Amino acid sequence: MKTIIILGAGRSASSLIHYLCEHSKDHQWKIMVGDYQQTLAAEKIKGFEEVASAFEFDINNDEHKEKYIAMGDIVVSMLPARFHIEVAKVAIKHAVPMTTASYITPEMQALNEEAQEKGIILLNEIGLDPGIDHMSAMKMIEEVKEKGHSIEGFESFTGGLIAPESDNNPWNYKFTWNPRNVVIAGQGGAVRFLHNGKYKYIPYNKLFRRTERIEIDEYGKFEGYANRDSLKYVEKYGLEGVPTVYRGTLRRPGFCRAWNCFVTLGATDDSYVMENTENMTYREFINSFLRYNPNDSVELKLMQYLKLSQDDIEMEKLEWLDIFSDKKVGLPSATPAQILQKILEEKWALDKNDKDMIVMYHKLFYKKGAENILRTSHMVVKGKDQTYTAMSDTVGIPLAIATKLILQGKITKTGTCIPVHKNIYEPVLEELETLGITFKEQEVVMSPQEMSSL
Amino acid sequence: MKTIIILGAGRSASSLIHYLCEHSKDHQWKIMVGDYQQTLAAEKIKGFEEVASAFEFDINNDEHKEKYIAMGDIVVSMLPARFHIEVAKVAIKHAVPMTTASYITPEMQALNEEAQEKGIILLNEIGLDPGIDHMSAMKMIEEVKEKGHSIEGFESFTGGLIAPESDNNPWNYKFTWNPRNVVIAGQGGAVRFLHNGKYKYIPYNKLFRRTERIEIDEYGKFEGYANRDSLKYVEKYGLEGVPTVYRGTLRRPGFCRAWNCFVTLGATDDSYVMENTENMTYREFINSFLRYNPNDSVELKLMQYLKLSQDDIEMEKLEWLDIFSDKKVGLPSATPAQILQKILEEKWALDKNDKDMIVMYHKLFYKKGAENILRTSHMVVKGKDQTYTAMSDTVGIPLAIATKLILQGKITKTGTCIPVHKNIYEPVLEELETLGITFKEQEVVMSPQEMSSL
Repeated sequence: MKTIIILGAGRSASSLIHYLCEHSKDHQWKIMVGDYQQTLAAEKIKGFEEVASAFEFDINNDEHKEKYIAMGDIVVSMLPARFHIEVAKVAIKHAVPMTTASYITPEMQALNEEAQEKGIILLNEIGLDPGIDHMSAMKMIEEVKEKGHSIEGFESFTGGLIAPESDNNPWNYKFTWNPRNVVIAGQGGAVRFLHNGKYKYIPYNKLFRRTERIEIDEYGKFEGYANRDSLKYVEKYGLEGVPTVYRGTLRRPGFCRAWNCFVTLGATDDSYVMENTENMTYREFINSFLRYNPNDSVELKLMQYLKLSQDDIEMEKLEWLDIFSDKKVGLPSATPAQILQKILEEKWALDKNDKDMIVMYHKLFYKKGAENILRTSHMVVKGKDQTYTAMSDTVGIPLAIATKLILQGKITKTGTCIPVHKNIYEPVLEELETLGITFKEQEVVMSPQEMSSL
Repeated sequence: MKTIIILGAGRSASSLIHYLCEHSKDHQWKIMVGDYQQTLAAEKIKGFEEVASAFEFDINNDEHKEKYIAMGDIVVSMLPARFHIEVAKVAIKHAVPMTTASYITPEMQALNEEAQEKGIILLNEIGLDPGIDHMSAMKMIEEVKEKGHSIEGFESFTGGLIAPESDNNPWNYKFTWNPRNVVIAGQGGAVRFLHNGKYKYIPYNKLFRRTERIEIDEYGKFEGYANRDSLKYVEKYGLEGVPTVYRGTLRRPGFCRAWNCFVTLGATDDSYVMENTENMTYREFINSFLRYNPNDSVELKLMQYLKLSQDDIEMEKLEWLDIFSDKKVGLPSATPAQILQKILEEKWALDKNDKDMIVMYHKLFYKKGAENILRTSHMVVKGKDQTYTAMSDTVGIPLAIATKLILQGKITKTGTCIPVHKNIYEPVLEELETLGITFKEQEVVMSPQEMSSL
């Protein structure tokens, strides 16, 4: 009988807990779910009380950490990312392998040797993005490499969106995940990538105006804006010497152009607290970024400042958000980003029956003899309901599968790692496919004309 | 016989040292100038060896610090700003008053009580900006307040520019001070100010497009862009409740619009290191911010990206800088800002006989009964040569005068302070006037029409 310790029972843990509970009888697992709020953990294991139990867990309580992590044959950390390192240190002490869906930090990487000495794996970045993106990308890349072809370019896009049947607003967008990350996306570092051998850099003020159009059969058109640092994927994916490496985020067409209005105004800035925000109206919030002129309306001043016409679709999107209304902000000492988030949360909230949708899209260019081939691969996953969302499924299920494979001894790698190794991504992707999380691939031969317009 | 210790003999110390040496005989002072390079200090006191001596001074050498600061009846720190606090701590220990031309830091402020206990002053911000700006502003503000009028607005602009007779490039600008500060101006924090009772915020991407036009008799037109945080001057200048408080930096008209091209490209970013900068050409530097397209020229791509026409004056300015040339950057691991600085330093360098010019301009709006009055005050100072520049004079001479007044017991305030007190600014401004550093004031009655268009 093996024990799986799951730390953190928040929204993103639903699908993970469900998968592991469902598989626990077959494998004689005991599942223990710990959360700061024990009732939340208890709720998540409802119906599985035979195999699963809930406990109170406070990461800042050393006794909790020592006691519960030591009890596990594996520990899954679904805590906020900054706490993984605390879990990892105790896990190493007791030689318990660990899995997370978060980005590796330098501190986590530094535990590599210790983990190897203890013979355990610290497997990170095994959710959606990071996670499924790595695995599906590596599968394409290594397949083409193994056939001896030369890779000319790799582009990859992911988006957490609203399913078409729930898409009923002019932004074609709702918050299906952490709203704060959407508001501050693209800030805090240079955006850089490689295009046909040239290093390219985009400042924040132009990021949402340098989009790429994408079309996916059945699902229609999307636009992608560049993620912060695509260059770090060169080494991660073994793409050294490949002339194009680009990663982006997907939105529906027109989103980025309208979002850029907020960027240009300064309304996404999270670096300073504004004055008098508690009693500020939405209209005053917008006006604080515009020139003083009591004779002109805020709408007119905004259009002039952003060079918009009355009938531009940006204006429809902006007006729909009620940004020109006299609604009160009601937040004390807030940053522009916090106020904007509040405005958006009212309008981009999911309705009770809304479903989310995850879209991932890869483009791999390679040379096969004299031919230039474009291989595309896409995955679209829709949520079942508000608990088992597409986001929860695509983050939690790969993590759950990997956790199972480690327990079963099918993943034998040790040390700090991410799922770019064939013996990890192959079995995980195979099982994901049986669960409906599948990629569709297509190949087309590119004409010289098409190649030159890339 | 009193001893003045001057620490730091760099470019900005010339006028200060000259003033104090010149006055030393009248007052029986002994001047000691310390620098990391003793030869530099010796050069600065040439011709004054009777009253002045040079010594080697290393701020990181505790023995130097203790020995030389203790020898002074006053110490003037012209060291890089981060070292003032080190000087201040030792100065307090030996009860030696201290003067600097730099902004007060929280650490310096924290020494206030200790300095008061020892009965000494730590006088900061007594150069040009900060310095003359505080003093001349406070003079206007307190004069109007003393007459019982109500202040409706205060705006203040300063610019370090090139004198008209040396102005021979399309930017009407040359580097007369720290080039790095010019390149990264406006970054690193929100720009905020008060306009007619409304708090206004400008993001970096719009900063150089929200300029104010100013005209000064004899000197022509200027444009001002907003400084980072004008709000902190509300308390400093006793302007609580005043509806308009704005501080800005002056350039010649057209500068800001063209500078904004670099901002929009991302060429002023100092937050990341670019790839392969050593062998990069200027043209490649610019191209790295533009879309990949080998069929279009860098010039055309830039014009399209920035929405410029071939004959826009921005293009003339940009081309004149040789940014489209194949000159090599030649800097290893450089940030965009460092590369841009290098490009600019080649073109904006002062010629041997060039003279710089400091312009300061204040606008004070107040109500005198039913009348709305605008009082303006401006100072223009031109440099004598490349040693006694306008910048060196306007930074060094007020500092030197204040140092003298402290030694003479004419400034009696103790603790950490800045020259916003009448008994400091009045005698300093009076003496500055005798040396040709003068303000010209004008008053006009504003019509209701003029008032409503503010």
